[in-house]
Amino acid sequence: MTEQMLEALAKKIKSCRNVTVLTHYHPDGDTIGAGFGLCYYLRSVGVMANVKNSEEFPAKFAYLFKDYKNQDFEEEAVISVDVADPKLLGPALESYADKVDICIDHHASNRLFAKESFIDGGCCSACLIIYDLLKTLKAKITPLMADCLYTGISTDTGCFMYESTSPEAHRAAADLIELGANASAINRSMFQIKSRGRIFAEQKMIGTMKFADSGSIALIAITNDIIDNFGVDRADLDGFAAIPLTVEGVRIGITLKQQPEDERLFKVSIRTLDADASAIAQNFGGGGHIRAAGCSISGELDEVAEKIIAVAEKYL
Amino acid sequence: MTEQMLEALAKKIKSCRNVTVLTHYHPDGDTIGAGFGLCYYLRSVGVMANVKNSEEFPAKFAYLFKDYKNQDFEEEAVISVDVADPKLLGPALESYADKVDICIDHHASNRLFAKESFIDGGCCSACLIIYDLLKTLKAKITPLMADCLYTGISTDTGCFMYESTSPEAHRAAADLIELGANASAINRSMFQIKSRGRIFAEQKMIGTMKFADSGSIALIAITNDIIDNFGVDRADLDGFAAIPLTVEGVRIGITLKQQPEDERLFKVSIRTLDADASAIAQNFGGGGHIRAAGCSISGELDEVAEKIIAVAEKYL
Repeated sequence: MTEQMLEALAKKIKSCRNVTVLTHYHPDGDTIGAGFGLCYYLRSVGVMANVKNSEEFPAKFAYLFKDYKNQDFEEEAVISVDVADPKLLGPALESYADKVDICIDHHASNRLFAKESFIDGGCCSACLIIYDLLKTLKAKITPLMADCLYTGISTDTGCFMYESTSPEAHRAAADLIELGANASAINRSMFQIKSRGRIFAEQKMIGTMKFADSGSIALIAITNDIIDNFGVDRADLDGFAAIPLTVEGVRIGITLKQQPEDERLFKVSIRTLDADASAIAQNFGGGGHIRAAGCSISGELDEVAEKIIAVAEKYL
Repeated sequence: MTEQMLEALAKKIKSCRNVTVLTHYHPDGDTIGAGFGLCYYLRSVGVMANVKNSEEFPAKFAYLFKDYKNQDFEEEAVISVDVADPKLLGPALESYADKVDICIDHHASNRLFAKESFIDGGCCSACLIIYDLLKTLKAKITPLMADCLYTGISTDTGCFMYESTSPEAHRAAADLIELGANASAINRSMFQIKSRGRIFAEQKMIGTMKFADSGSIALIAITNDIIDNFGVDRADLDGFAAIPLTVEGVRIGITLKQQPEDERLFKVSIRTLDADASAIAQNFGGGGHIRAAGCSISGELDEVAEKIIAVAEKYL
């Protein structure tokens, strides 16, 4: 975000009182980190502030809000963080769709639904924008705020692995570690530790991996059987979609997720190294980004696998 | 490394001509990155220089030396990088054990075997020392040198995941990306991509994971069977030792590696979250670091597993 935008945003933030910070549905490390990071900053300068989500925040992020309590005040300003579209506020917050005063986001696709939007589509994470904002505000960043912001930067860059990892992301991480972020504990819990169910479910799925086109396409299926047998939390299924593309030679990775309410319905995740994932998904009425997209297909597992592979082959 | 040490080292480096740079046996990203990074710098200022290793450098690092050719000169100076002990030079370079002029290393355990040693035991990687050295030398860092140094910093910090990841490591990574390091391609190849054999071998081993002490101890075995069946390169077995400790609740992770020349001999890797791995290994005549150690135990697989688990339980 340009310094000019940051200055303008900082000026707006300084004028806010009694703030509700909105985070997106199916909350991830970036929206949670940005939401609580901003909330703790506001509270630290005497502004009443709460963070809201349509769901409960996942327990794995509890280190960011274990001592957090909602404050009681009459809301005067609404700020959303990491929310690209009002639909992403989720069912419990949908009444906020046209009530957002300030939108802070790093998605180029942001729908500009707020009264004022501060978007940097080139930035790797909302937390990096919040960090730059707090620097502009000359905030005293506490270790807890540093944990919040480090969490979002690290999770949204795959622990500094993805192409989106900018020099600025590394420099912010350096500063946040100096400010007290528990980087290694955060990374261990975000990236390394898996539940026993998850690790065995992964093993089971890898065992059933199918290859096509001499290994350029790999497909795994997450069936209701596997989920039930290994007691895997469905919320814990993110990340499975990345597995097929980690096999050497694979350029299109496909993950089929059987739906609990209909065993003949599969949600399909498509990840690609160089092919157009979104174009593949569009063949089945889906869509997404160029390297990560999704759709839904009905049928028996084998049939669905054949269908999606037949289409994917055309995009190699 | 202190500025004073860096200045002294820079002065020494400037006086070197016809340099052999030695890297350690079983070369990893840090020794290779530091070795070639330093060599390319020396060549860039008109100094003849070669990089040597006791073995061939692994193909996965070929992007660092694909256009490298040995130069023909009479050796006048020998510099070792990332070599803590002359034994680690390996069999083909053992004649160099008492011929190293300058030793640059980040292991606190360095044996100080060289004529002059420049050691920073608190530094996460040899490549970070070389980066600081090149800055001190006001070197023009090319994209290829940046790839070398980024590779060592990233691989030795587990892609910025380990506790050893300092703010300086992040800041150096930021600079190196700006200097042209292909960070995301390097990380994808170092951390994400696995051969099909490796991924299925991993799956097989996870399937045989044993737990003890209510899940505080996890053990996997890499048998000759698994290696032969899945065509896994033994050089590709690093990293397996980290698997048991990624399971939620596990505090001691043990990996048994059956030896090809003797099926009753197992190399044991011990990784711990909080227990003293080195003390556990010492029970079997081994040793190592507090969180990562090793030993060898003879016997049938089940018997060896029982022995090491029985000892490990005492250290929880």
